[in-house]
Amino acid sequence: MIISMKRGASREQIEHVRERIIAFGYKVHSIEGEERVVIGAVGVGDTTPAIEQLESTPGVESVVPISQPFKVVSRQMQPSKTVICINGTSIGGDTFTVMAGPCSVESEEQILSTARAVKAAGAQILRGGAFKPRTSPYDFQGLEEEGLKLLRKAKQETGLATISEVMADADVDLLNEYVDILQVGARNMQNFALLKRLGKLNKPIMLKRGLSSTLKELLLSAEYIASKGNTQIILCERGVRTFETYTRNTLDLAAVPALSELSHLPIVVDPSHGTGRRSLIPPMVRAAVAAGADGMMVEVHPNPELAFSDGAQSLTIETFTKMMKGLQPYLDLWKAERKLDAI
Amino acid sequence: MIISMKRGASREQIEHVRERIIAFGYKVHSIEGEERVVIGAVGVGDTTPAIEQLESTPGVESVVPISQPFKVVSRQMQPSKTVICINGTSIGGDTFTVMAGPCSVESEEQILSTARAVKAAGAQILRGGAFKPRTSPYDFQGLEEEGLKLLRKAKQETGLATISEVMADADVDLLNEYVDILQVGARNMQNFALLKRLGKLNKPIMLKRGLSSTLKELLLSAEYIASKGNTQIILCERGVRTFETYTRNTLDLAAVPALSELSHLPIVVDPSHGTGRRSLIPPMVRAAVAAGADGMMVEVHPNPELAFSDGAQSLTIETFTKMMKGLQPYLDLWKAERKLDAI
Amino acid sequence: MIISMKRGASREQIEHVRERIIAFGYKVHSIEGEERVVIGAVGVGDTTPAIEQLESTPGVESVVPISQPFKVVSRQMQPSKTVICINGTSIGGDTFTVMAGPCSVESEEQILSTARAVKAAGAQILRGGAFKPRTSPYDFQGLEEEGLKLLRKAKQETGLATISEVMADADVDLLNEYVDILQVGARNMQNFALLKRLGKLNKPIMLKRGLSSTLKELLLSAEYIASKGNTQIILCERGVRTFETYTRNTLDLAAVPALSELSHLPIVVDPSHGTGRRSLIPPMVRAAVAAGADGMMVEVHPNPELAFSDGAQSLTIETFTKMMKGLQPYLDLWKAERKLDAI
Amino acid sequence: MIISMKRGASREQIEHVRERIIAFGYKVHSIEGEERVVIGAVGVGDTTPAIEQLESTPGVESVVPISQPFKVVSRQMQPSKTVICINGTSIGGDTFTVMAGPCSVESEEQILSTARAVKAAGAQILRGGAFKPRTSPYDFQGLEEEGLKLLRKAKQETGLATISEVMADADVDLLNEYVDILQVGARNMQNFALLKRLGKLNKPIMLKRGLSSTLKELLLSAEYIASKGNTQIILCERGVRTFETYTRNTLDLAAVPALSELSHLPIVVDPSHGTGRRSLIPPMVRAAVAAGADGMMVEVHPNPELAFSDGAQSLTIETFTKMMKGLQPYLDLWKAERKLDAI
Repeated sequence: MIISMKRGASREQIEHVRERIIAFGYKVHSIEGEERVVIGAVGVGDTTPAIEQLESTPGVESVVPISQPFKVVSRQMQPSKTVICINGTSIGGDTFTVMAGPCSVESEEQILSTARAVKAAGAQILRGGAFKPRTSPYDFQGLEEEGLKLLRKAKQETGLATISEVMADADVDLLNEYVDILQVGARNMQNFALLKRLGKLNKPIMLKRGLSSTLKELLLSAEYIASKGNTQIILCERGVRTFETYTRNTLDLAAVPALSELSHLPIVVDPSHGTGRRSLIPPMVRAAVAAGADGMMVEVHPNPELAFSDGAQSLTIETFTKMMKGLQPYLDLWKAERKLDAI
Repeated sequence: MIISMKRGASREQIEHVRERIIAFGYKVHSIEGEERVVIGAVGVGDTTPAIEQLESTPGVESVVPISQPFKVVSRQMQPSKTVICINGTSIGGDTFTVMAGPCSVESEEQILSTARAVKAAGAQILRGGAFKPRTSPYDFQGLEEEGLKLLRKAKQETGLATISEVMADADVDLLNEYVDILQVGARNMQNFALLKRLGKLNKPIMLKRGLSSTLKELLLSAEYIASKGNTQIILCERGVRTFETYTRNTLDLAAVPALSELSHLPIVVDPSHGTGRRSLIPPMVRAAVAAGADGMMVEVHPNPELAFSDGAQSLTIETFTKMMKGLQPYLDLWKAERKLDAI
Repeated sequence: MIISMKRGASREQIEHVRERIIAFGYKVHSIEGEERVVIGAVGVGDTTPAIEQLESTPGVESVVPISQPFKVVSRQMQPSKTVICINGTSIGGDTFTVMAGPCSVESEEQILSTARAVKAAGAQILRGGAFKPRTSPYDFQGLEEEGLKLLRKAKQETGLATISEVMADADVDLLNEYVDILQVGARNMQNFALLKRLGKLNKPIMLKRGLSSTLKELLLSAEYIASKGNTQIILCERGVRTFETYTRNTLDLAAVPALSELSHLPIVVDPSHGTGRRSLIPPMVRAAVAAGADGMMVEVHPNPELAFSDGAQSLTIETFTKMMKGLQPYLDLWKAERKLDAI
Repeated sequence: MIISMKRGASREQIEHVRERIIAFGYKVHSIEGEERVVIGAVGVGDTTPAIEQLESTPGVESVVPISQPFKVVSRQMQPSKTVICINGTSIGGDTFTVMAGPCSVESEEQILSTARAVKAAGAQILRGGAFKPRTSPYDFQGLEEEGLKLLRKAKQETGLATISEVMADADVDLLNEYVDILQVGARNMQNFALLKRLGKLNKPIMLKRGLSSTLKELLLSAEYIASKGNTQIILCERGVRTFETYTRNTLDLAAVPALSELSHLPIVVDPSHGTGRRSLIPPMVRAAVAAGADGMMVEVHPNPELAFSDGAQSLTIETFTKMMKGLQPYLDLWKAERKLDAI
């Protein structure tokens, strides 16, 4: 950590900062410039309170951390990629994971027909919301446990693994009983009570990036889960909020290689929420594969215009099936790159 | 709601859209332009699913809602301002509310000395976090119930009302027992499970605007609480996230008159989080008063450089006291404006 | 255009709006809802002033345009893609265009060695800045005409076409004399005087998206050029500014298919500025190809650590050459998709 | 400047960085941490190229500058505020400057009647655009020289000083002949050719903050002008672009005290563009005064619904006059604060 003193900071102030750094467990190295004094704090001290408190100490202009604040989820800690095995498939390994299904579970007919179709087209995991985070209280809020039962039924019939969103601490046990992966939505990325609770499960968690979260914040939220013991975490890039209005969000595909530099966790891309427009999903799926993502999550509905939610960004079964066919040569290239990386 | 069809939409598509609009409970008015057909849906139908589903209907280019989606919290519904009475003071009435105190409750000595000082300087409400939402799991997470007990002690001694953040559904009852106002933090503004739970309390809730939430989304989150029965809601502008890095957030003071046009709920400004810099707080407090806010929330700490959190944006007791003195003439103007408005 | 009146707008106000719409050359269709009146303006009137002025007319709540404001550059106007032929190559056709070279032209040795190397690796166009837009006046501002002469020399030797940025109206003729494509930088995307001037040239213009420009604004800037007669325009996505700090900008790859829906102009992706990090460029180049871009622009420098500008995002010649080799199978897929589209 | 080496950087890499720092004119201080080496570069070297080039040097993880990059415009360089005297009034001194007038000069009648009215209400400076930066080429582009003549006429009749926007290098001499202050619009804030040209004038320049410009970038653009010799610069906060759509921009009032800490230049607030909504202007004007701005710029039109541009954010003459009356007690407080500061 580097502490830059204000121009004209007094000798007493400088000495006081040095003492505080030592109190936090660091060694002190001062650099006396012509304009100001800069102090390096070296070693393994108590970083976070140190940064905050030193920023408030008289005479200090700024404090710049040198190390990344996340540990368990960092590449530094674990150079090899995390592979999550589930229901006979793996995420983060040598298969590109396809998660597909409706935004909301709406009926037995709807989820079963979708499940069969996405499986036939090549998906390994079925998505479907039973608890829905909706901006308005007057929107459809999900079928709740009934929806989870239908998801389980779809799994029993098709053999697909399942993923569904958990919105509240109180629902964790219920979700854990019914589905294979628990998803934390963008709006809950910093619901720390929920993250801590999920850290105690022995089940994969997919953590979506918040609407205006930096990559560092996403990784610190993953660290909340991992630091409690559960390291089966999948990161999900689903677009961030910007000034652009043509798309629902701005899909940040550079997050894929960037997160991959910073962390060993698998990374999935959600172009449905990332763009909010059906027509943009197939090119963004190809781009996600080419960028090296470990998988994708896509919304598919048998009849989007009757969907209870997110119809405008849902693919029909036909479009999804066609998209999957067109994706095959890109998936072949993806596999070849993975083999090269593994050598 | 106005549905704009694509250029070249077929007669069948147009007819299908008309039928669906009628099925949602609206009357249909079509406008046949030279380039395209635009259809108005008039009356009181089931707006939200209609918008989403019509957006996904073949031949539709866009759907533009005409009415605001929030109801209970809108000015239209209730033209007169909501006044929340609490502990002998009121929020939204003819007194500018001052909430002050440390970011976190740290010790008896710390919270009591701060309480006495902010009361002496003119505050009516004591803030202090017992459960802390921290970006990193390795940061100080709050004293929890112990902190709440200290807050209550400070209330007993000084007579100040108290406010503290609730982070999880599971903590609602505990907070409800100890404090006068429950605060929902920016990161939880769309924690819908928590909002629904708070909607069933008979206690004021302060709802902070999310880091990248629009005013409309803030009001829809308030609507989540209000639609469950609790209309004692205080809105809080605390800055939004932008590209600017000099300040921690960008304080959107125009939100004060804008929210006041849209809603009858009282509005409080938090310049501590809004700027993240001690030196910018006094001018932003004056600006908030001049913009017509109903109150402010400010972080004050007896010794910011030893604060467990947010030291860089905490005022010392001396600075706070001086700021409050300098604020008096602005508060006098504020009171005069309120009287004019009331006539 | 749809004009939504305020609830409670008076009959006189409604009548006045109707008269004004007619005065702008439109036909009027009113929809009398239960809560408010909505008026459709149909036909070909004088859209832009109409929208602005109607927004200011008493009793009006909002005005929503139905048609896109750009014309010459829209897909609607010209369904087939624009192909720009230059120096024996084409942009927007059946070859993926590779533009590469240093951020700034620095010396004969530097530009010639880079030109030879990028040509050998497969580039068709050499980039190199002679006039540099730098945030600080104390940064290197470019070699100016001397730089243009060196670019021409590199073209003569290698046969590569050239592209260089024009920053000022006064330099247009000079640039026009020396290079094959004139580039408008992100900071000048709304320098309307410059755009109008370029609209009178008979030379391809590459227009970069502004740091916080919407796609619609980018197309309206292209319209400035096109409406003066020059329709040889290449659009360039180079990342937008967001809150994320790990990358220099947030590369918006969904802009590629989105612009392609809206406009017939070719679209090039610049992952060097889009990410600002050398390590992220190869995956983003693959993603751009997969997303269907017409080309890319990449910064390459023989010795990035001695570059006068943008060294951190410049590829070495070795890395560029290796990246181009790895790109070949993706380019083969790209070509196959183009052939399919053409059928 | 602090150079942080990557973990595992080699001895050769570290030595190479040390040599390069010395070559840039700095002294070297190394700090050998347990995880990595951090190197301080001390003294007065050639900062800007050094930062960029060191960032690209093998083994370097990041380079953090310690000093601010702007010099002439910084508070450090000149602790006392710049006061610009013009036409018998001053900006940055002990009078709050009021600039008012129409977005565009449209006719003699329009500009003269507005000039008389804003003067009567207390304005010192008349604004009016003769060259208009419009997003669409089909929008009204301004009366050009004819508009400037009308502005001069209004000045002759009323004695008000005048300000108008310059959009192109080629128009600088013309504007300089007719008006008292040349305004650089948000879209041209980084039109460096224009800034350099204005740096050679002996006339005040008002520089508006770009739509997505940081405060640091605004000051570096001011530095472009100042470094060429013209230090009569007025900064203008006019809102930045965010995700919020209720307001046209997000007015960043904290920029007022922030810029005042960083620079000695006067700061004016433009709530017309900052909010885009007539109803929000009076509260934002009061807030700007309370925040300590040196002045404001407001759009006023005799008949906003007939305005050629920006009608929705223009005040009528009546509203402006009423607003100015209501502002008086706030201006009295402002004057009292200035006197206190001056002591």
